[in-house]
Amino acid sequence: MSWFRPLSSKTRRFTSLSRFSTSTSPVHHAGLGPTKAHEKPRVVVLGSGWAGCRLMKGLDPKIYDIVCVSPRNHMVFTPLLASTCVGTLEFRTVAEPIARIQPAISREPGSFFFLANCTAIDALNHVVQCESVTEGTQTIDPWKFTIAYDKLVIALGAQPTTFGIHGVYEHAIFLREVYHAQEIRRKLLLNLMMSDVPGIEEEEKRRLLHCVVVGGGPTGVEFSGELSDFIVRDVRERYSHVKDYIHVTLIEANEILSSFDVRLRQYATNQLTKSGVRLVRGIVKDVEEKKIILNDGTEVPYGLLVWSTGVGPSAFIQSLDFPKSPGGRIGTDEWLRVPTVEDIFSIGDCSGFVESTGKQPLPALAQVAERQGKYLAMLLNKIGKENGGRANSAKDFDFGEQFVYKHLGSMASIGSYKALVDLRQSKEAKGLSLAGFVSWFIWRSAYLTRVISWRNRFYVAINWATTFVFGRDISRI
Amino acid sequence: MSWFRPLSSKTRRFTSLSRFSTSTSPVHHAGLGPTKAHEKPRVVVLGSGWAGCRLMKGLDPKIYDIVCVSPRNHMVFTPLLASTCVGTLEFRTVAEPIARIQPAISREPGSFFFLANCTAIDALNHVVQCESVTEGTQTIDPWKFTIAYDKLVIALGAQPTTFGIHGVYEHAIFLREVYHAQEIRRKLLLNLMMSDVPGIEEEEKRRLLHCVVVGGGPTGVEFSGELSDFIVRDVRERYSHVKDYIHVTLIEANEILSSFDVRLRQYATNQLTKSGVRLVRGIVKDVEEKKIILNDGTEVPYGLLVWSTGVGPSAFIQSLDFPKSPGGRIGTDEWLRVPTVEDIFSIGDCSGFVESTGKQPLPALAQVAERQGKYLAMLLNKIGKENGGRANSAKDFDFGEQFVYKHLGSMASIGSYKALVDLRQSKEAKGLSLAGFVSWFIWRSAYLTRVISWRNRFYVAINWATTFVFGRDISRI
Repeated sequence: MSWFRPLSSKTRRFTSLSRFSTSTSPVHHAGLGPTKAHEKPRVVVLGSGWAGCRLMKGLDPKIYDIVCVSPRNHMVFTPLLASTCVGTLEFRTVAEPIARIQPAISREPGSFFFLANCTAIDALNHVVQCESVTEGTQTIDPWKFTIAYDKLVIALGAQPTTFGIHGVYEHAIFLREVYHAQEIRRKLLLNLMMSDVPGIEEEEKRRLLHCVVVGGGPTGVEFSGELSDFIVRDVRERYSHVKDYIHVTLIEANEILSSFDVRLRQYATNQLTKSGVRLVRGIVKDVEEKKIILNDGTEVPYGLLVWSTGVGPSAFIQSLDFPKSPGGRIGTDEWLRVPTVEDIFSIGDCSGFVESTGKQPLPALAQVAERQGKYLAMLLNKIGKENGGRANSAKDFDFGEQFVYKHLGSMASIGSYKALVDLRQSKEAKGLSLAGFVSWFIWRSAYLTRVISWRNRFYVAINWATTFVFGRDISRI
Repeated sequence: MSWFRPLSSKTRRFTSLSRFSTSTSPVHHAGLGPTKAHEKPRVVVLGSGWAGCRLMKGLDPKIYDIVCVSPRNHMVFTPLLASTCVGTLEFRTVAEPIARIQPAISREPGSFFFLANCTAIDALNHVVQCESVTEGTQTIDPWKFTIAYDKLVIALGAQPTTFGIHGVYEHAIFLREVYHAQEIRRKLLLNLMMSDVPGIEEEEKRRLLHCVVVGGGPTGVEFSGELSDFIVRDVRERYSHVKDYIHVTLIEANEILSSFDVRLRQYATNQLTKSGVRLVRGIVKDVEEKKIILNDGTEVPYGLLVWSTGVGPSAFIQSLDFPKSPGGRIGTDEWLRVPTVEDIFSIGDCSGFVESTGKQPLPALAQVAERQGKYLAMLLNKIGKENGGRANSAKDFDFGEQFVYKHLGSMASIGSYKALVDLRQSKEAKGLSLAGFVSWFIWRSAYLTRVISWRNRFYVAINWATTFVFGRDISRI
């Protein structure tokens, strides 16, 4: 293993950073070495989504040192992301810093957050290789380093699916990170202003103000609903010159909100149509700079294109030499362990049960990730307490209760102060399903209590109240 | 005047945009033609800073159609900008959309906001040429258009001075726009995280966390104060691994806060030093990627460099063929008119009295710009009411009261809940001057009542309260 290098004697001149190797040449081989007997065992968490953050929140920092590796230093509260695109909520309200979720990360001398990507996993030697994320900042060189782990949790999430359609990455915007929402907002406001420039052609004006959403899942529907609320309430008032030119089209190959009850689906369809969202059944064949082309040859010019057709495993996950679940995710057993190796677990959208467990694949939902994170935190705390926290020390351990997922129901907002709540266990089961203002109220309340910190709960409430009183903010910063 | 073209007959197919010419080839010649007898006279405002926005707020939309041309659709509440860099205040809290300052801009059929730069002024024909701002968005072509005006107000502000020092534009960040504050915040948080990466050298860590501010005026001092508050309160807690490596240096060629009372200056110096800000007397000779070089040869490595050494006239202002005031600003008479031409006024940092008025040049302060905007709105309303609103119709008009500036005093925050308040009329005059917590309270109260909308007043109060309770937000989005 050429890229790993043990601690050098130079380390001693560091005080608070005593476990770093600091060889000057080549610096690329520095890293966190294996934990020593007097230190706490180290859990390395790859990723900072719902699964990873819920896990870190639950891990006991008295038992473990926690090291998180992720290209972003916050968790995104994804169910509310669509609301930030049009200014109903502020961007920061849906971002929770990891240091707030698990304060030990910034306080404990052996716990760290590294703004980096994991580039390789050496399961045999219990080491991961990482590279720091610098976003092209020229004054900082990208830095390679290694981290030895006692337990490794892979919670890297998934990436948007494009079905190999040409032009999606170049021209469409996804809706998964805060910077996506920022890009959508900037583009929407730019298009609104550009369409008002003197002398612009009718056709170009319609194109600029045509917002197309591909994918009729909860994200696509929520975004379409928010957008039509924004148009009805704010564009009419603040951009009255162009208010008759703006339109929203939602393109879906099958049914919208296919996981919901047929009655709820019908309700959502009616409601969206009433708010002015044009629902189109169609399959996208090609995406160009200013238009998309459907399978039947229809050309749809657009000014803003948002793509949300579900997620699939990333190239890094696919490249890992681990057992896989159907669909190409990292395979796990009933305790969320990767079966062929020691001390590696995987949770969230990047993982699934291996076929031999006989278990159904779980949907790529925040709810599943959150439950898995919570379960694994308890399991690791239990293992740690019973002295199984070190590398290779939990081989004959009794892992106890398996992870069992119980679906609590689905919710989706559809705009105009309306939402769907489907409390059935599965698509076939019977149970409560609701639509309308009461559901919308439940939807808001449920999210308010799930936003992690009190600070953000407070801000969500304040944002909602000010949007209600003053309208949405339209400054393009 | 080859680039101007009168309204074409094609215009008729437009309804809400009836005064646009819409020739298709070349489209570059489209624009707003001269106002007709049945229409309101048109005031064109170039810029959306303190001066332009205060003017638009005061103009009577029943008398005039208002057209604003600016590369940003909001006003920046500059005195609070330094607070947003470290998360004390949110970015949107200091940005006020123009459509909120003057709602007629988005409601009246003849009033517009154009996201564009003015590229030429034809004073003889009462027309300005503009080019839309697209920020490199590939799906929108830059668009040239013209606007005929009855009254033109040039309120384009100034640009940062660099004294021709090499490397300032490439490596330093100014602190004048919201995107500057965003860049500072992203860079500061990136440096904090990068300095925590395993294996990084001591020296590089110190460099990354060395924040250098050049210029000891109110902006530089306020930013240094905010930064040291952030370090003392938030970095110590949230980035405890690197807390001993972060430092702030303020470099000034002369005295800091030179416009203030000597007693206040001494107080500020003591206070900043106590908070850990290193004050250095020096002149910058050269700025390189990772270090600055002073006149005496000293090399100062930095991770973040903020430049605030005052402002001067922009290249566009310099290029205009108008009388100039000492210092190269657009020259105006006592009524803020540009003397050699009809119907052109200039206010704010881009303008100054011509020498023949015998008046002192006014400082480049928000206070001056705001007062000039207010005065000019009253003057234009008066002219409009007395039928002088049309182009060339106010030649023999009695302009009445001249603009007289009365300095209300200066304020500057210096961090640690302390501020300076200097209520003297001028540097030589006697009068009240205060320093400390009471001043800080006055400073906050004064700003709270000056932030324009109730929405933003509310958010400033909320932001300050949450920062006090929960600390600053550190998510890097």
